[in-house]
Amino acid sequence: MSNMKPIMAMTMGDPAGIGPETLVKTMLSEEIHNCCKPFVIGSQAIMEKAAKVCGLEDKIKFHPITDPSEAKYEIGTFDIMETGDYDTDSIEWGEVQQLCGQMSYDFIVRSIELGIAGKIDAVSTTPINKQAIKMCGVSEPGHTEIYQHLTNSKYALTMFSCHKLRVFFVSRHMSLIDAVKYATKDVVLQNLRDIDYELRSVGIENPLIAVAGINPHNGDNGMFGREELDELFPAVEAAQAEGINAVGPIPGDSVFNIGKSGKFDAILSMYHDQGHIACKTYDFEKSVTVTWGLPFIRGSVDHGTAFDIAGKNIANEISLIESTKVCAEYAGLKMAKNQ
Amino acid sequence: MSNMKPIMAMTMGDPAGIGPETLVKTMLSEEIHNCCKPFVIGSQAIMEKAAKVCGLEDKIKFHPITDPSEAKYEIGTFDIMETGDYDTDSIEWGEVQQLCGQMSYDFIVRSIELGIAGKIDAVSTTPINKQAIKMCGVSEPGHTEIYQHLTNSKYALTMFSCHKLRVFFVSRHMSLIDAVKYATKDVVLQNLRDIDYELRSVGIENPLIAVAGINPHNGDNGMFGREELDELFPAVEAAQAEGINAVGPIPGDSVFNIGKSGKFDAILSMYHDQGHIACKTYDFEKSVTVTWGLPFIRGSVDHGTAFDIAGKNIANEISLIESTKVCAEYAGLKMAKNQ
Repeated sequence: MSNMKPIMAMTMGDPAGIGPETLVKTMLSEEIHNCCKPFVIGSQAIMEKAAKVCGLEDKIKFHPITDPSEAKYEIGTFDIMETGDYDTDSIEWGEVQQLCGQMSYDFIVRSIELGIAGKIDAVSTTPINKQAIKMCGVSEPGHTEIYQHLTNSKYALTMFSCHKLRVFFVSRHMSLIDAVKYATKDVVLQNLRDIDYELRSVGIENPLIAVAGINPHNGDNGMFGREELDELFPAVEAAQAEGINAVGPIPGDSVFNIGKSGKFDAILSMYHDQGHIACKTYDFEKSVTVTWGLPFIRGSVDHGTAFDIAGKNIANEISLIESTKVCAEYAGLKMAKNQ
Repeated sequence: MSNMKPIMAMTMGDPAGIGPETLVKTMLSEEIHNCCKPFVIGSQAIMEKAAKVCGLEDKIKFHPITDPSEAKYEIGTFDIMETGDYDTDSIEWGEVQQLCGQMSYDFIVRSIELGIAGKIDAVSTTPINKQAIKMCGVSEPGHTEIYQHLTNSKYALTMFSCHKLRVFFVSRHMSLIDAVKYATKDVVLQNLRDIDYELRSVGIENPLIAVAGINPHNGDNGMFGREELDELFPAVEAAQAEGINAVGPIPGDSVFNIGKSGKFDAILSMYHDQGHIACKTYDFEKSVTVTWGLPFIRGSVDHGTAFDIAGKNIANEISLIESTKVCAEYAGLKMAKNQ
């Protein structure tokens, strides 16, 4: 891990979800201040309400800022950047509200403006609500697509981090049958190139990337499916010919277990649930997301707004602390590499 | 767990693999003798060779038996039942040999004869080699199929046990695309009936069975695949209408994590790797197999013959101890239920 402390924008997420509560607890964490310089993009009124929910209002002072250069980055002082004047009194915990969609979108947009301007090194996001942002006319289904679109990035690669596992995905939100058909030699090869490029950008030299198989036992030499023979082995060979340190395919039910030791720098999973099942069953709270390919590193929790428990001081901050730490680690490595 | 100690046949598996070594160590385990009455179906000459490999030859006496009623079931005394006179001097560690295929098959056949005759309560198997048994003209690809065929059982249901997870499979050895197509309402419903029946047979009343989804996020209401809407929800509803305590489908990347707490009595996974990835990533060595639907309970390790490390005292007995314990637990519950 690098010694550089990246400037970390923490977006408050949907004001009606568990984002504000988990953010209050995370901002008070010494661990977080040890690994980055965090400030909040959000609403002071909502953060105050969340702090009361958590019984932590006496431990916090707010310090409004309009630019990261004004921030103090002290524990107990929440540097907070507002994005507008909202009727926050109208907001109820745990309900889909258009205003909440608009606010959570505005926080994201501000983080992107700061990121493009080079004023922050990383963004750690808390959950937004799909329906709420849709009510505001946002066409992208989630964070990743918004960040990719508004930063004009060629791609936004999602990576799951869970202890020593780094898991990438050939596809995410498509049916399982479509996902199997989508994982062609060319698509897998392009994924390997992108992963190789991104990991090198944070100083991981010659990263060892394991490709997961699709069929049981890798299809047992074509007996149960030909995807390994026709697409995956050729993709790995083509990648190797380009100097990429790829291996596999390795049967899906072995590659993650093998990877727990840290043997691979990354595992490329062939469909959404393959990597998700591995990480979430291994350790749900330590499964966090990093997005690569943007002008800055973005980290995210893997849980949602959890409206059913919002405003009740039930939600814990373990995932947000983990995702912020992981995000800070890669941002720090990138700063060190670019020095 | 029941207090009944089942009579447990331990088959020695392929004499050239790690079965004999792991069996020597397992037979010396106090844990095993505390939960069952174990005896070996195998070759004394090979077990002696394996004991020397492990440096344990001084701790063992052999006690040849021809019927379980003759067994002493004492730690340090290996009750052993031979199945023929073989040229064991010709056997080399780590090689595919026809004689080894024949012997491992003979051990299985003997366990089935004893099981059908009601002389044992359970069988714990060590690995066999597919190629070696094929050289002897055995047409079944593995243990499960041999046990089902030779016992004339209607089905042989494979279950993975891993800590508090009990994971069943709609299909196992078919391509992923075929597996998705195979998981129809009728097939899933029949699986739920069989699981319900088998778990009740060991005294688990009204077992709560969770059905895993196929597509990411259960297909998000048909956006990414319709299998949940068209097949899985109807299967669960039909099962509930029959009085089966089924729930789901629950998204594949959540159901195993939720199940770690013991919330479900069983999880029905929709394809081989789904349940295998979950269990093996969670805890490989504690992932063991139980076969239901035979006249006796059969337990098995989930690793293979590991020819590359056979005869080197590298293989550990953790999996065989776990599979034997789990097998003994269910056999004991069945005995208690049938009292």
